[in-house]
This record gives sequence, structure tokens and C-alpha cells, in this order.
Amino acid sequence: MVFSNYVREIPNFPAPGVIFRDITPIMADAKAFSEAIEAMSAPVRTLEPTHVMGLESRGFIFGSALAMHLGLGFVPARRVGKLPRQTIQEKYGLEHENLALEIHADAFGSGDRVLIVDDVLVTGSTAAAAKRLVERTGAHPVALTLFIELSELTGREALKGLPVFSVMRC
Amino acid sequence: MVFSNYVREIPNFPAPGVIFRDITPIMADAKAFSEAIEAMSAPVRTLEPTHVMGLESRGFIFGSALAMHLGLGFVPARRVGKLPRQTIQEKYGLEHENLALEIHADAFGSGDRVLIVDDVLVTGSTAAAAKRLVERTGAHPVALTLFIELSELTGREALKGLPVFSVMRC
Repeated sequence: MVFSNYVREIPNFPAPGVIFRDITPIMADAKAFSEAIEAMSAPVRTLEPTHVMGLESRGFIFGSALAMHLGLGFVPARRVGKLPRQTIQEKYGLEHENLALEIHADAFGSGDRVLIVDDVLVTGSTAAAAKRLVERTGAHPVALTLFIELSELTGREALKGLPVFSVMRC
Repeated sequence: MVFSNYVREIPNFPAPGVIFRDITPIMADAKAFSEAIEAMSAPVRTLEPTHVMGLESRGFIFGSALAMHLGLGFVPARRVGKLPRQTIQEKYGLEHENLALEIHADAFGSGDRVLIVDDVLVTGSTAAAAKRLVERTGAHPVALTLFIELSELTGREALKGLPVFSVMRC
């Protein structure tokens, strides 16, 4: 499977100068989607995760399919104000943007091993916030897995030692 | 599996007088999540869907796992401005709210059979917009499947003949 045949590059979206990687064609094709999820699963099985945490909202799509494929529970890391019970929050992005991810405070226990899932790794700031969230619950973040990694950026450095796996680099 | 043991009722969220059904405990438990997805799959297999369309954003979680479980492609129906290519749009909710769902204009072809997936059916207005989106592409919406249906409301009536399946009613 040549996954790059299923990724469309859209220049200047959502802002001028940005190349957006549209991964909807991968998901829409049953065989490509299934092979993408298996490719994301293969390197993480030996890490024995107990849960997948998907990052809102494209990380929900890859993360939920991965949880189903690996037989794990799924926890959504959401934007602020979406979860109804007591939450913990970690900020990311520039200070003026006031962006943050939230999970329920009781989402994980101390024995849990959490695989963090998103679609694309760009600067790594969102994934780093996700890693801090998991650590604050006492659980162990075992790896970050992504479909695409933008290798001209230094997303991995922001993860400070967390193993990072991606299917495609561009 | 008694699914109701995994749903928490949160009064007055996100607004006074509303009871929010928190389904995160179902997803977080590997066995409950897997059984929920099988329960959602069972009645729709004979409808021979070719694609799952999940509604942003909790519909992404159930929809993506369902697509993986049934061996289908997945198409996200998103909030306005999230998709990079040419889209079609259908409004829902009250006029002043200006809410809409979007899909890429080429998301489906005329032979496609689309299973629409969301977490909860309340008024049915979002699902009705999703049904109109599918119909505009020339594809056939085969059913709406949900985890929870609020039966004191009349969500099904908004769907105008589309088969509706739910695992829990409350």
C-alpha cells in the first residue's frame, strides 16, 4: 500500500504558507484505512498499552479504530469545556491563543499504560500537553503514534524521551 | 453487559435543565467498548453499507471503531471550515445558531451506501442534516445508528423514514 497516494496536499490551508495534509482519502477507502491502522498498531503492541488516548478531533478517528483493533479502551483528550465531570487541563500553543486539552481527572489509574494517538505531528506542542496530562494522573505514557510526521519540523524534541512512531514522513 | 452501568448522568450540563449522558466510561473499558461497537454493528450488517459517516466529534469515536469493525471506509462530517477542499454544507439547529455540517463534495459516489453514526440522538436535527448531505452526493443513506436514544424526544420523526438503531434508550 502506497499511503502517499491517499494523502492530498492542499497549499495555503488553513492559513497562507501552510501545506495541509488531507488524510480523508485514507479513511474513506476501507482497505487503506484498515492497513493504516495495522501499520500504526504494529510497532506499539510490544509496549503493552492498556488504553489509547486520542486527541480531538482527528486523533479520535485514528485513536478509536486503533483501540478497537488492539482491544483497548479509548479516552478522548478534548478541547476545553466539552467534558462534563471534573477535569485536568494542560495548555499548548502560544500564550495568547489560550488553547488547552482536557481529560476527566479520573480518566486513568496508576497502573495504566497509555498510547497517545493523533493524525499528524507538527510542532509537537499538542502531543507534549497530552503527555503531561497522562503523567499527572499517575499513568505511564508508553508512546505517541501518528499517521504523518512532518520531518522538517522538530516535533519529536518536544516529547522529551517519549517513543514516537509514524507511518508516513513528509 | 449492562451498558447503563457505564453511562453517567450529569445534571445541568452543558446548560441548566439538561441531563448530559457521559459515555466516556463505556469507551474507556476495553470490553464494554468492544461490546458496544458489536451491538451497534449487529442490526446494520444486512443493510450492506459501504461507508460509515461519523458526526463531529463523538460520532467520530463510535463511527471510526464501527468502520474498522465492519471493514468499511470512514467519512467525517465536520463543523464548518475544517475541511480543506470543496465542501457541501447542511444547516441544523435554530436559525440564529448558524450551525452546519460539511463533507467534501466528492466524499461519496452514486453507488455508495452510507451508515450515519453518532453517539446520542436528541432532537434529530443534526442527523437529519447528515442525511441530507449524503442524499445530495447521490449516495444512499441506509440507516442512522447511535449508542443512546433519548426516547422522550421525537428524534426519529426528524429522520423521515431513515431506519434508526440504538443500543440504549433513556
